[in-house]
Amino acid sequence: MISVNHIKIKKGMSVNELILQMDSSGVLGAGRLGKAVNICEAMIKDKDCKVFLGLAGPLVPGGMREIIIDLIENKWVDVVVATGATLTHDLGEALGYKHYQGSAAADDTELRKKGFDRIYESYMPNRIYEGMEDFIAKNFESLKEKKSIKDFLWEIGRLTPKKSICRACFENKIPLFCPAISDSGIGLMIWGQLAKGKTSETRAFEDLKEIIESSWTSKKAGVIYFGGGVPKNYIQQAMQLAPKMASYGVQVTMDRPEPGGSSGAELKEGISWGKMNPKAKFVDLICDATIAMPIIVAALKERIK
Amino acid sequence: MISVNHIKIKKGMSVNELILQMDSSGVLGAGRLGKAVNICEAMIKDKDCKVFLGLAGPLVPGGMREIIIDLIENKWVDVVVATGATLTHDLGEALGYKHYQGSAAADDTELRKKGFDRIYESYMPNRIYEGMEDFIAKNFESLKEKKSIKDFLWEIGRLTPKKSICRACFENKIPLFCPAISDSGIGLMIWGQLAKGKTSETRAFEDLKEIIESSWTSKKAGVIYFGGGVPKNYIQQAMQLAPKMASYGVQVTMDRPEPGGSSGAELKEGISWGKMNPKAKFVDLICDATIAMPIIVAALKERIK
Amino acid sequence: MISVNHIKIKKGMSVNELILQMDSSGVLGAGRLGKAVNICEAMIKDKDCKVFLGLAGPLVPGGMREIIIDLIENKWVDVVVATGATLTHDLGEALGYKHYQGSAAADDTELRKKGFDRIYESYMPNRIYEGMEDFIAKNFESLKEKKSIKDFLWEIGRLTPKKSICRACFENKIPLFCPAISDSGIGLMIWGQLAKGKTSETRAFEDLKEIIESSWTSKKAGVIYFGGGVPKNYIQQAMQLAPKMASYGVQVTMDRPEPGGSSGAELKEGISWGKMNPKAKFVDLICDATIAMPIIVAALKERIK
Amino acid sequence: MISVNHIKIKKGMSVNELILQMDSSGVLGAGRLGKAVNICEAMIKDKDCKVFLGLAGPLVPGGMREIIIDLIENKWVDVVVATGATLTHDLGEALGYKHYQGSAAADDTELRKKGFDRIYESYMPNRIYEGMEDFIAKNFESLKEKKSIKDFLWEIGRLTPKKSICRACFENKIPLFCPAISDSGIGLMIWGQLAKGKTSETRAFEDLKEIIESSWTSKKAGVIYFGGGVPKNYIQQAMQLAPKMASYGVQVTMDRPEPGGSSGAELKEGISWGKMNPKAKFVDLICDATIAMPIIVAALKERIK
Repeated sequence: MISVNHIKIKKGMSVNELILQMDSSGVLGAGRLGKAVNICEAMIKDKDCKVFLGLAGPLVPGGMREIIIDLIENKWVDVVVATGATLTHDLGEALGYKHYQGSAAADDTELRKKGFDRIYESYMPNRIYEGMEDFIAKNFESLKEKKSIKDFLWEIGRLTPKKSICRACFENKIPLFCPAISDSGIGLMIWGQLAKGKTSETRAFEDLKEIIESSWTSKKAGVIYFGGGVPKNYIQQAMQLAPKMASYGVQVTMDRPEPGGSSGAELKEGISWGKMNPKAKFVDLICDATIAMPIIVAALKERIK
Repeated sequence: MISVNHIKIKKGMSVNELILQMDSSGVLGAGRLGKAVNICEAMIKDKDCKVFLGLAGPLVPGGMREIIIDLIENKWVDVVVATGATLTHDLGEALGYKHYQGSAAADDTELRKKGFDRIYESYMPNRIYEGMEDFIAKNFESLKEKKSIKDFLWEIGRLTPKKSICRACFENKIPLFCPAISDSGIGLMIWGQLAKGKTSETRAFEDLKEIIESSWTSKKAGVIYFGGGVPKNYIQQAMQLAPKMASYGVQVTMDRPEPGGSSGAELKEGISWGKMNPKAKFVDLICDATIAMPIIVAALKERIK
Repeated sequence: MISVNHIKIKKGMSVNELILQMDSSGVLGAGRLGKAVNICEAMIKDKDCKVFLGLAGPLVPGGMREIIIDLIENKWVDVVVATGATLTHDLGEALGYKHYQGSAAADDTELRKKGFDRIYESYMPNRIYEGMEDFIAKNFESLKEKKSIKDFLWEIGRLTPKKSICRACFENKIPLFCPAISDSGIGLMIWGQLAKGKTSETRAFEDLKEIIESSWTSKKAGVIYFGGGVPKNYIQQAMQLAPKMASYGVQVTMDRPEPGGSSGAELKEGISWGKMNPKAKFVDLICDATIAMPIIVAALKERIK
Repeated sequence: MISVNHIKIKKGMSVNELILQMDSSGVLGAGRLGKAVNICEAMIKDKDCKVFLGLAGPLVPGGMREIIIDLIENKWVDVVVATGATLTHDLGEALGYKHYQGSAAADDTELRKKGFDRIYESYMPNRIYEGMEDFIAKNFESLKEKKSIKDFLWEIGRLTPKKSICRACFENKIPLFCPAISDSGIGLMIWGQLAKGKTSETRAFEDLKEIIESSWTSKKAGVIYFGGGVPKNYIQQAMQLAPKMASYGVQVTMDRPEPGGSSGAELKEGISWGKMNPKAKFVDLICDATIAMPIIVAALKERIK
């Protein structure tokens, strides 16, 4: 049995030095955070392992955009699945808009008058929709022909004027999936075109071929989930077809298992489904993603390369 | 100011009698549950109001299937949006399979050997996939041609041998949406066909036309969310296009607002977006859906018709 | 394996009829609520079993006061442990004050000016302190001599003009414990007397003798926790000295196990400590206490006597 | 309006460098963590401010013991309020015992046989009770005479052979309060003496004089809560008597406000009570304490002195 080591704080310690202390401490949040870094490090360094990253929740309004792009550009991840909201927030920033620090106690009626959409304690300027409408209208001819959502998103990436999640995926040939893309601001802009009588060729089931090809051909697979939702579930589903299931897993969420949904389900549940290898290294970290993601990535930067 | 009335329990009281007591009590869970029933009653009885129902989480393994079908057959709801998992669980039962009472403390490796997939404390027999594979294979020719996911789901309903959510929606002409249908067991079965070189015509963005038409043409709209995820967000998005936004809202979830995601967001946040009418009647109920749904519906049965 | 029965709602069904349906449904919230009623019924009907009730959280501002008093007067419980806040709220109502329905979105600075103390969405009139100060000042001579907190609380019950939790415990000779009584409005009022140079003889450790005597002499013990905190932990501690540990357990809380504290700890953890009998019947119900308590008691009323 | 700055991770960055990035990011967890460090820094550096620290939850089994002792020895805090469990875990370690890394999935019946008490995913060796029993028995004569719980705890600190929270408080003359001390392993050991017919003079209400004197005489007050429970509430209660209420506040908890209890209550609620100054700087951080505490203290070490 391993005894609990009590963390000692030193002035000026680096993030990784703190994480190493956490790793040897107990098995509550601190210990799990330490373990999460170890597992991420192992899967990224494992040349045989394809890393699947799931992104849900307000990561862009929460200030995580550069970190996510960094993960893609460094090729630390091989497949990305995101919510439509994340890609919409990201496109908005790529088109020159900002998100703002706000307050959950704000008067929502006033915010509406001022043109701000509230995302808990962040604000998104409503005029972001105008910019996106122009962008989609201008590029609809090339977007409408994409048969898969992945190709649709890569095309958005190709067309995006500045650095963005979509663009980083396109440029680095990292497949980017978003099964519920119609459930997003981007979806609404496409509807704007359909409402004018235009048509879109993008298929609902088409991407399944590519994501399952990705897992099917993996020697090993690792999963990293920030938030649950469709991104987590879609990757979990692909793991059912991976020859060795997932060999590594890190889940960061504030959702709890007791309501029984996929978002809060513990990773070990996946063993029963054949999604998680019984011998896999995995950890469930109960933490706000905007706290955990920068810490994990900062510690990894000290460990990798 | 209204003082807190202390609930008095009488032997044999009906569910609605208890709810009336709760309604006059404080403003914690009990009071909110009382208010949730009042608001559901108001929106269902309001002839001008279209009711949008969002369903997420393991409602079918949780025993809610008959209640959901009942809501549809009674035409208490006008539009349904569900997760792919819910429709998969539902189809499984319609094909003759059952879900089973289990335990979160089970040995997942053992469950896998025995052929059971764990959903928190419920088990789904893995052989459900065989039945679904047969069903989809047999009916793929008619399913593949459906241009919208709604038509695809109605077709599943039409073909389903027994009572089911899909079938109840089809028979009662209630639109049923599922933007992330590819992220589900049904999606996997379709992939099985695509993997054989077949093609599917179902479009990713097509349904937006119909759900927005539904909200656009509503005199008033009401929203009821059991769980968050894509179903809630997709309805919320449609509310942005409703002439009067939502006039009624009931949200039942265990997710919390602080991580900032859509699932746990308080309904009042929607006011800033123009999704919720500032004068709307709405309530956020923090409760397991499988507790709240039967209670709310039992109370409504005493009040409606 | 037991299959999930889907709940069927009938018009006018009694609370217990609904609970019986829930009991045969899945094992999410609904199923656990059904099980909680069964276990409460079993422990109350078991003549050999002493029932220990723990009360934490804003149960009085939440409208639960009559139900709690009812549980005591019916002698369904044998020992009660409560937070100081609950006894303060209860004494306030016994002295003629009310709690009020409020809003978490209220302006707290305004509330302060108006003389209302906010308890999430309930308000307590600040003048309650004047009434309590008078009550304590008038009765300090008899209160100050009580050596145990239990005797102190029974004396408050004896002196209380109207029906109250303290009075019901006093009249029915149900021991009432509150280890952290100094951490409450009642505590503050006692401080007011001490600040004038008076002294109190009430001992910090004295009650341990009586609560452990209670568990020590039990043939069997059952525990019911609404909320966690000191009440739960103090009863759990007493179970360590019960000959057979707890044979029945029902826990109702919104706290989660992952932060590792006692409040959210699953009951099964108590097996390792010798607090919970490995053969005990117990259930953890994740639910707002103000929803669960009325439902459980309403169902029990149909089953007991 | 302040726009969201996206965090940029640099290799080898110190904890404080990361926190400064978080501070300028959004207003989700990362932004709140940044703000928490700022507010702690401000209150510790403010010469006029007395800092009240509340400690609840399994901080010692979670590896936080050295950090807490460090906070006391550096005199960054002026008053400490803790749960009995924390002081029991701390005394156990001072007597030479360890806590161990464990698993929530362990077989609790097996653990009992092996003599380990489970605290979520930590284990405490049951033989810790023997050591504590000896310690208390040996020192009961000097402990029993202490009139206040604070003096009782300082005496434990004086008698403790090694570095400990109690000893650090005693040596640095930092008042240490624990209203519910009887609800703890230490309490049980005192009961062991009382059961032999001995008596203890420690009074239940006595400490109120000293903690309220502390707040009453403060020019300014600041509060830091890791976890809720009695420690938070007891300090909050003292703030009602502080001339300027609390001027600074940091709360770190996983409890949520919706059940309405004190543990999860937002700090702003305290404004209505006159506990928190309407002009105070304060933040509610939703985070596991074992993650937040090391990070906050590591960042503070770079900023203070």
